Amino acid sequence: MSKKQFLSTDPYKGVRDFYPEDMAIQRYLFDVWSMTAESFGFERYDASVLEPSDMYRAKGAQNEEMVNDQTYTFTDRGDREVTLRPEMTPTVARMIAHKQRELAFPVRWYSIPNLFRYERTQRGRLREHWQLNCDIFGSTDVSADVELIALAYQIFINFGADESMFEIHVNDRALMTRLYRALGVSDEQIPEITRLNDRRNKISDEVYRAELTKIIGDETKAEEVILMLDNSDEQTDVMIGLHELGITNVVFDKSLARGFDYYTGTIFEIFDTDPENNRAMMGGGRYDNLTGLFSDEAVPGVGFGFGDVTLRNFLESHNLLTSDITSPTLTVIPTDVSLNIEGQKVAQQFRAAGISVATDIGTKKLQKKLKSASDTFVDYVLVLGDDEITSQKYTVKNLADGTEESGSIEDLITKIQN
Amino acid sequence: MSKKQFLSTDPYKGVRDFYPEDMAIQRYLFDVWSMTAESFGFERYDASVLEPSDMYRAKGAQNEEMVNDQTYTFTDRGDREVTLRPEMTPTVARMIAHKQRELAFPVRWYSIPNLFRYERTQRGRLREHWQLNCDIFGSTDVSADVELIALAYQIFINFGADESMFEIHVNDRALMTRLYRALGVSDEQIPEITRLNDRRNKISDEVYRAELTKIIGDETKAEEVILMLDNSDEQTDVMIGLHELGITNVVFDKSLARGFDYYTGTIFEIFDTDPENNRAMMGGGRYDNLTGLFSDEAVPGVGFGFGDVTLRNFLESHNLLTSDITSPTLTVIPTDVSLNIEGQKVAQQFRAAGISVATDIGTKKLQKKLKSASDTFVDYVLVLGDDEITSQKYTVKNLADGTEESGSIEDLITKIQN
Repeated sequence: MSKKQFLSTDPYKGVRDFYPEDMAIQRYLFDVWSMTAESFGFERYDASVLEPSDMYRAKGAQNEEMVNDQTYTFTDRGDREVTLRPEMTPTVARMIAHKQRELAFPVRWYSIPNLFRYERTQRGRLREHWQLNCDIFGSTDVSADVELIALAYQIFINFGADESMFEIHVNDRALMTRLYRALGVSDEQIPEITRLNDRRNKISDEVYRAELTKIIGDETKAEEVILMLDNSDEQTDVMIGLHELGITNVVFDKSLARGFDYYTGTIFEIFDTDPENNRAMMGGGRYDNLTGLFSDEAVPGVGFGFGDVTLRNFLESHNLLTSDITSPTLTVIPTDVSLNIEGQKVAQQFRAAGISVATDIGTKKLQKKLKSASDTFVDYVLVLGDDEITSQKYTVKNLADGTEESGSIEDLITKIQN
Repeated sequence: MSKKQFLSTDPYKGVRDFYPEDMAIQRYLFDVWSMTAESFGFERYDASVLEPSDMYRAKGAQNEEMVNDQTYTFTDRGDREVTLRPEMTPTVARMIAHKQRELAFPVRWYSIPNLFRYERTQRGRLREHWQLNCDIFGSTDVSADVELIALAYQIFINFGADESMFEIHVNDRALMTRLYRALGVSDEQIPEITRLNDRRNKISDEVYRAELTKIIGDETKAEEVILMLDNSDEQTDVMIGLHELGITNVVFDKSLARGFDYYTGTIFEIFDTDPENNRAMMGGGRYDNLTGLFSDEAVPGVGFGFGDVTLRNFLESHNLLTSDITSPTLTVIPTDVSLNIEGQKVAQQFRAAGISVATDIGTKKLQKKLKSASDTFVDYVLVLGDDEITSQKYTVKNLADGTEESGSIEDLITKIQN
């Protein structure tokens, strides 16, 4: 026995390996995302995972803490502080600001970046995930907000979901500020109430009331705030616009908070209606000042992020995910290693006709090679021995129904293509 | 004037932003790569950019230096040393070793990862690039080496290149060891000679001879080595196999070295034949021991890496790159902001028929909106005013030839689709 110390084959903590069966699912998610975004006229962009750390610190003290505690940040040899991007919005704002003078607004851009979060305490939580990001820049009109939510809605539909499976929650930060002010709540208290509302579902009604009263410092006022929050009869322009487009699984949710500080208007999240998985799957909102970090002509934006992990959970729990690994159409199986190059020649001719072909150049026996081909979901096999090479007549077996066809390679190409 | 200090809009040093026009090219490169690899029966996998640093140190002292000086390596808060992957081969060897017992070999896998190199001194050199990686695992047969090089060849052909534009250089480390030993060169001297050969084109013949004599310690033996190296009449089995497949732009190049230590047999590189760009664009080889880091049953492998930057240079210098930005088919232009939601409704109906549609919800005048649509290479525009909404009769203009068609949305869908 070897006494050698072997390296672990596990990936780094909190990140994933994508074996072909997982990668096939991942590509399916990305393909539906791309296709839907492009159907709305969005153009794809990308950037590096490495960004100057200043970009994340710049938004205020709360972000200083976020960069220090929740991101991968390190100093390079040129003494630059660099961060593995935890979100894409600052990056896209930077890129928009860089070409602000050249771009014809409104601009619709999308990207599918990987994002990194470094959370010390949470066990089992991923440190890297992939996220569709869609943004519209250069329009303050409510129809941009409506379009963006309609795009998110259409993504669910294009994955095969129906309206009963998900619900769109909409809120508006500017409107909430007006409503709070009207009740005499001070501007300093608003962010505290917002953060409390974010936890409202997780705490008891008593605790909620007590904490709210503590923030506001007045029990009567606190009750008025609760009445205001629980009255969801109002309609926002965004909701009216969505109804116009026939999108009705929308609720006005005054408790909706969203994590990021930079939102200035509409915010929204989409929830799984399955009570087992009752949490936000994706969300976004309007941020009218973000490019202001880079230039004094701020470009208004509205955007969302939609993560691969929450999407996959949703699709799995609603049975909307069909595993569909891309396999080659044909496997050529030489009967002996000495015929492997001949196998490549045969494969080459099928490939020239656009048919994907693998060759089994292993040393296993023929029966094992046939089983292996059938296990990998290939459609056809072609066994290649000396007879086939001499006669230039080949036989292709359809693994689905067991039928066989014989002829020249040209004949067989025609048969496989039909 | 604002006195605010603005953040830079430049990306982090040495990495690239991909604006839509660059991203369209990048996706074209990735699509041809994927399509060609899949036509050979390769399956796609992926992994995180973060890998345990041990994996790169393990191969020997030379790698210790490489990890310290040329990679992004940092210590996480759990005291784990982590590296942004500088190459994909160790990752794929790790993943293969992890599922060694389950996989049906030979396995053909490909991936398009981003890779990071941190070089302190070289100015203008990129620190991040993307690379196609293709590997065949589980076969020691020469036909695997042949197939892999045939795949690399086919990639060039599928990008529109012809054989006059590139040349395949092949060498074999095992064969070279036998040839050196036959001339009395010691095993310790071989790596030094290999590194010297790697620089042979960059130094004068005198310097080369002097350095070779210094390594070998015997002028006569050095001359014999030069004679052996310059005799390229021999054919390797790999070259014979490639000729069988009709691939003839191949030379046997005994000076070919390759950077990585882990190659054990065939090595190859592909060169641009353009004298202005006479350097290796991609390369690979056989490594029969790499999974041995992870388990005592080593799986033989043969693979290559093909970078996006060198490929793009090649395609540009040979005029093989056509810029082809994906634009929406149709832009709906409301004549007034108050009609923006109506614009979304019209767009929604075209999208339901599979037509990609953007809406211009900006505040610019109609003429400017029309110019903007034509600048972004959209095929059709539909101007939407109160008359169109009332009559439900719309007009679509073909921007290529200026022709117009009018009718219901259903009529226009049919016309655009034909």
